[in-house]
Formats: sequence, C-alpha cells, structure tokens
Amino acid sequence: VGEFDLIGEVFATLACARLGHSELAIGDDCALLESLPVDERWAVSTDTLVSGTHFFPEVDPALLGYKALAVNLSDLAAMGARPRAFTLALTLPQVNPGWLRALAGGFDTLACEFDCELVGGDTTQGPLSLTITVFGACKHTKVLKRSAARLGDDIWVSGALGGAALALRQVHTGQAVEPPVRARLEKPKPQVRLGQALAGMAHAAIDVSDGFVQDLGHMMKASGLGAEVHWERIPLDPGLQHAEPAMQQACALAGGDDYELAFTAPPSLRQTIQDLAHPLQVGLSRVGQVIEKPGVRLLHSGLPMHIDRAGFDHFGGRGS
Amino acid sequence: VGEFDLIGEVFATLACARLGHSELAIGDDCALLESLPVDERWAVSTDTLVSGTHFFPEVDPALLGYKALAVNLSDLAAMGARPRAFTLALTLPQVNPGWLRALAGGFDTLACEFDCELVGGDTTQGPLSLTITVFGACKHTKVLKRSAARLGDDIWVSGALGGAALALRQVHTGQAVEPPVRARLEKPKPQVRLGQALAGMAHAAIDVSDGFVQDLGHMMKASGLGAEVHWERIPLDPGLQHAEPAMQQACALAGGDDYELAFTAPPSLRQTIQDLAHPLQVGLSRVGQVIEKPGVRLLHSGLPMHIDRAGFDHFGGRGS
Repeated sequence: VGEFDLIGEVFATLACARLGHSELAIGDDCALLESLPVDERWAVSTDTLVSGTHFFPEVDPALLGYKALAVNLSDLAAMGARPRAFTLALTLPQVNPGWLRALAGGFDTLACEFDCELVGGDTTQGPLSLTITVFGACKHTKVLKRSAARLGDDIWVSGALGGAALALRQVHTGQAVEPPVRARLEKPKPQVRLGQALAGMAHAAIDVSDGFVQDLGHMMKASGLGAEVHWERIPLDPGLQHAEPAMQQACALAGGDDYELAFTAPPSLRQTIQDLAHPLQVGLSRVGQVIEKPGVRLLHSGLPMHIDRAGFDHFGGRGS
Repeated sequence: VGEFDLIGEVFATLACARLGHSELAIGDDCALLESLPVDERWAVSTDTLVSGTHFFPEVDPALLGYKALAVNLSDLAAMGARPRAFTLALTLPQVNPGWLRALAGGFDTLACEFDCELVGGDTTQGPLSLTITVFGACKHTKVLKRSAARLGDDIWVSGALGGAALALRQVHTGQAVEPPVRARLEKPKPQVRLGQALAGMAHAAIDVSDGFVQDLGHMMKASGLGAEVHWERIPLDPGLQHAEPAMQQACALAGGDDYELAFTAPPSLRQTIQDLAHPLQVGLSRVGQVIEKPGVRLLHSGLPMHIDRAGFDHFGGRGS
C-alpha cells in the first residue's frame, strides 16, 4: 500500500464520505453531483488555507480541518444555500497518518452536522495547504446576492463581531486568550441555518470574513448603493466589552475572520427577521440602513466617526 | 486599488470569465452553476499543481496556466463530460501583474476552446500553487466510470504514450528536447471531444496521468477484473522510436503525464470506435482485452513481459 492509497483510505472511510448524496464519489476521475429539483441551482465556492498565511504550521490538525470546511460553509450560508458536497485538495510536505486522521476528524463532524458529503479531492506533495470547494443547493429565485440590496433596506448582522481578531491579537502578543474568545478564531460556526432561513426574505447577504466594514462595502458597491451604520448598535464580542474603544473598533469593524452574516432586508420584515433569533439561537442586530451615497458611513451617537482604513485591504483576501 | 482587487480585475476581464453560462459568477460569495437538462449531472474534479513538485518555480506562467486547466479537463474527458465551468484557487508568494496576466492568458485560450467558464476562485499569499476545480455536464446514463469494464472488452488507448516522460527525463539530464516531445509535457491536449464521443459507447475509461499500467490497473481493480496488454500494440510517442527498449517501456508504460484516455469497449464496436479516429484526428489503438484474472498482464510477442514496478506508486499522485 503506497502513501497515496493510504490517504485515499483515510478519506474514503470517513462518515462524511458515505452520506450517499452523490451517484459517484471518491475513486473515479470525477465525482457526479446528485440531481437537483428543477428550480434549484448549485452554488459553488472555493477557499484556500495556507500554512504561514492563514494558520501556524504547528496548528492542531483537527482545528485546521474544522476551519477549512467552516469558512467554505460560511460562503454557502451567505447565498442561502443548503450544503450538499465538497472536495478537498490537500498539499502535504509528508504523509503522517496520525496527523491526517486528526485533520479528517476535524472536518468529518462538521460535514456530517451540515449533511455535506466528501465526494473527491486530490493529494499532492508540497508546502502545507488545503483548498476546499463546497457545493450547496439553492432555489434560484431565492438566492442571496451581494448585488441585491435596495435603497432603504435595514442592514443586519448576525452574532457578535471582533472575537476572532481579538484572539489573533492576543496570540500574537503572547497574552492569555479566554477559551470563548479563542473558539471564535479556531472554531467559527458557519451561519448555514440562518442563511437558509433568510433566503427569499433578505435581499443581499455577505459573510463577514474580511472585516465588517470591508465586506459591507463590497456588498454596497455590488448593489450600487451605500450604507450608514451606527457604531453603538454593532454587536461586540463579549471579550471586547472592557477593551479600549480603539481596540473595539479595530476588531469589530476591521478584524475579519468572524464568519457572521451581514445582510439587508426591507423594514417591513423587521419583526419576521427578529423572530428567527430564538429558534436559530443566533443574535440578530439591526445596525443601519442602505442609503444612496456610495461607501460605508459610520456614525457614533449620530455624528460621523472615522476609523483608520489602513489594513482594511490586505493581500490574502478571499474570493468568490 | 489593492493587490487583491488587481487580481480580481485581471481574472474578471478574461474572455473565459464572460462565456455567460453561469447566472452568477466572479464577485459573489459563490458562483451559481447553470441549470442542466434533467437527464444530465455535474461531473466535478479537482487537481492541484504545486511548485517544486509538478513544475519548476521558473516555469513560463502561460504554460503553467495552460497545463493546470488541461489536466483538469482531462478528468472530464475520462467521464465523457462536456466542460462548462471552473474555479481557480491560486496561491502566490507575491503579486506580479505581468506574471499573473501571462498565467491567465495560458488558460484563457484553452478555456474558450472548450467553452469552459471561469466562475470564481480564491487568491491567497503563500508558496506558489494552483488548484482548479472543473465542472462538466454528462448524461447520467452515459457516463464513463472506471468500474464499468466488462469481461471480454477490448482495451483501447488514444494518441501515443511516453512523450511527456521522455521530455521530463531529457530536461532532468540536460539533454536537448525536440519541440514536439516538449509539447507533450508542457501542452498536453485533453481528449475532451473523444471522451464525449465515447460516452454511451465505451464501458469504462480513465485518463492516463499516472502511467498507463498504473491507471489501467486502477480501472481494472475498480471493475473487479484484469487486463492483458500486448506491448507491440502500444502506440509509442515518435520521440521514443529510436530509444532503448527499457526506456521505451519505462516512458510509455510507467511514465505518466500523457493525458490520453484508456478505455474499454465491446468487440462489437471495434469499427465504430476506429471510425472516430479520423473526424477527431486522434490515434486509437486496440492494445489488449479485459480478462478475469486481476492485475495487468503484459505480453511481448505473446510471452509474459516483466517491467520494474518500482516508481509506479508515487506520492504526489492524482485523486478523483
């Protein structure tokens, strides 16, 4: 048994490789995706995590496996899609069976939780990195596009912001990191169920992976509109409650890696949307409104607020 | 304009990014694949090329871009699928606009030739590598599976074998490489049209990327059968005609990187298959037959032939 076969065996025996959605999965030249109802389409997203850029080489492989899939599921969430399948392209410096099994265990639980089948992949030798391509089903009339925000829409954000950035700063500066804050960085929960609930109800959505202001800006630019956001309505991660205002703003507005959903919806749906919070066990905060003037305008107690935009635009960002 | 935006702009303006198949392509959290006829399915394949493993860091970026897409299209060919879309996950040490445009130009022409739209991707910072995920449409009753070979089938192979391996050896040993031989390594032509013509006609197929004997072995194992192959019927790359027999065998049988199709079909279709050669301008050689005994049995003038299996199983192989 060669190393290549070993890798194939580790993956083929995972629970998430046997969910049975696909007619042909691991082991052929291609996987065959299942047939979808005629009013549904496949939403596809690809994200890469690279050692040294997105994680430390000595990262716990179980956490790495979890996060690589979580960030991809977050892209499906932002479209309102239902996860169904994924492929894994894995580049490894050498084959370490224990490490590989831990990595696989890290994404297996999450994949099974969201009914997302491992249908294929590729394993190559080289510097450590993972590229996951994820497939979700969505009704094409209900898909949440970045470009669909409308003038006068409310702007909402799920969960709380800034926890992942706070954890990363604390790690970098050698400070103690509280477990719930660390979990925001290492085990982000993709808002898949919220995304599906919002499909056909919200207008536009995006996942907050590059920082709230930057991602909101992308959504507004795609929609040809602008946003007005009230700082005091931004849901701060509890770990930031006693931090300096400058740290709160940097982490919550520009931090990134939060994997919450920012979305817009008509004011007529305020109560309907708020009513999703309890059954889905997710915080939902109405933080501003869509305006005509392009850009993202931040207000603090009703007055314009300036935050440093340096570092908002970073190479290493995430694509579609 | 940040580096990230620059990369997005280079890709968004490519001809292959505007083929119009997809309802939503580059620029959202996900791409949306087009709707397929009810009897069709999406075939999906992922392949990674890593600097230092699959190519030299100083490779011509146009050739790299070409090959990264070509090897993925070859997997669609092996299923008999019609290319429709692909995503590109690109990891770069730094952003060099000229290099990036050359890379993009390398796959743009090939993508347009095969009507395959760039629908999304991800660009990250790190050691150079490319992961392409390709999507093709196929009638689910006609798909060419590895596991579908039947006892008594003829075994066929397209084109000629061993050219890519010969070129690689010549490069490694500092010998002159004839342009047609070099082209076999650097610009392999994926047998997409042949694959589609064989769909519903051939039984099983695989692309010869890891070496003819190894890939044929995979197909036979998946089918629960074996193969008997006549060495003198193997179509040798013209560059190997005057080589030593040991070199001919190593390159043509174990060399890999040829991206031809090996397939099985019933003897009743011999003429029908042979008749595809002229319109598709591809060589088609009938090299053996499917037998009951597992494994791949090589014959030279009717007598068992032994080739060194070392190096047949290499880490760095290719997945589904």
